[in-house]
Amino acid sequence: MARDWITDPQEITRRSFEIVAAEADLARFDPAERGVATRLIHSCGMVEIAPDLRFAPGAVVAGREALTAGAPVLVDARMVEAGITRARLPAGNRVICTLDDPRVPDMAKQAGLTRSAIAVDLWVPHLPGAVVAIGNAPTALFRLLELIADGAPPPAAILGFPVGFVGAAESKDALASTRLPYLTLLGRRGGSAIASAAVNALAREGI
Amino acid sequence: MARDWITDPQEITRRSFEIVAAEADLARFDPAERGVATRLIHSCGMVEIAPDLRFAPGAVVAGREALTAGAPVLVDARMVEAGITRARLPAGNRVICTLDDPRVPDMAKQAGLTRSAIAVDLWVPHLPGAVVAIGNAPTALFRLLELIADGAPPPAAILGFPVGFVGAAESKDALASTRLPYLTLLGRRGGSAIASAAVNALAREGI
Repeated sequence: MARDWITDPQEITRRSFEIVAAEADLARFDPAERGVATRLIHSCGMVEIAPDLRFAPGAVVAGREALTAGAPVLVDARMVEAGITRARLPAGNRVICTLDDPRVPDMAKQAGLTRSAIAVDLWVPHLPGAVVAIGNAPTALFRLLELIADGAPPPAAILGFPVGFVGAAESKDALASTRLPYLTLLGRRGGSAIASAAVNALAREGI
Repeated sequence: MARDWITDPQEITRRSFEIVAAEADLARFDPAERGVATRLIHSCGMVEIAPDLRFAPGAVVAGREALTAGAPVLVDARMVEAGITRARLPAGNRVICTLDDPRVPDMAKQAGLTRSAIAVDLWVPHLPGAVVAIGNAPTALFRLLELIADGAPPPAAILGFPVGFVGAAESKDALASTRLPYLTLLGRRGGSAIASAAVNALAREGI
């Protein structure tokens, strides 16, 4: 059947990356960072996020090494979990989402926090060496920074991509003002597709 | 503990919707459509998508009625499925994702199509009266339009939000040129968060 749309998956991927390379200015990134930035842009179809991407020095390498060493991936939302390509994780890494833990609703009520924020408290035993991927809730990122400031062990890498109108920009500004190993997208934009693309990009060999 | 971030979920939602109402021009929509548009914008943190939203006349009502009548929701990706709030679906509606069907890889190879596109062929028995939510693959939307043009029964509503650089804009232009009951976002932007927000918005009472 003659079609006027591109049907071959390899060709779609090739052309997509060609467009990102042509349109996005990623000159300030080193090659490994550029590979990750390309995949983040690819996941959301927006070359216009390039100027707002911020990667702490060494964070891409730290995240990749953590995954290779078998680090768990701590996520704030089921959508982030669903976007992670399990087969690509280098060490059968666990993906942990504590949001649906039965303790969370009561804990949230008692603490006066969102469920997303208090679910981060349940990450603490898993934090050392972990890769954190936040793709939904600004309050999860705020709470993580709070717990770390209070002495919780910092993870190996923080992929901080909460989205929205209240707290997203502020929480990512706070993240980018730390010396933690982070990848983030400043401003209101973000989301679970970008967060899971960050995990998948770090998991990919030869980035 | 004194915090400089907003911790109360109701307050976060209230302020978010206040910001959308202040910043997004939704005057061309009727009240039900405006409620859906607000939730789509809320899901991605981008008031700037407002001018590119296109809703076919009556599509919001058709989608809502279909869900109330128990329509299944057909999705192109696990992330869309993960973003749908099951408890909010009005009739315990099934959410069907055929992408991981064991027949899909061979079917895709044989047809020379993407897995996302050929997975749509497996929707056909479920299409009459269904709500379709596409949040990832342009090829899924192209294939759906092709099958309908070839005589497959049209669904009750098509929430068409594929994302990316190759085919996303083109597939949504094709959708918007039909007389089908669609909601879409023209251009490259889209994604599973917007697609699942569309389902959740239609499922919500009193939109």
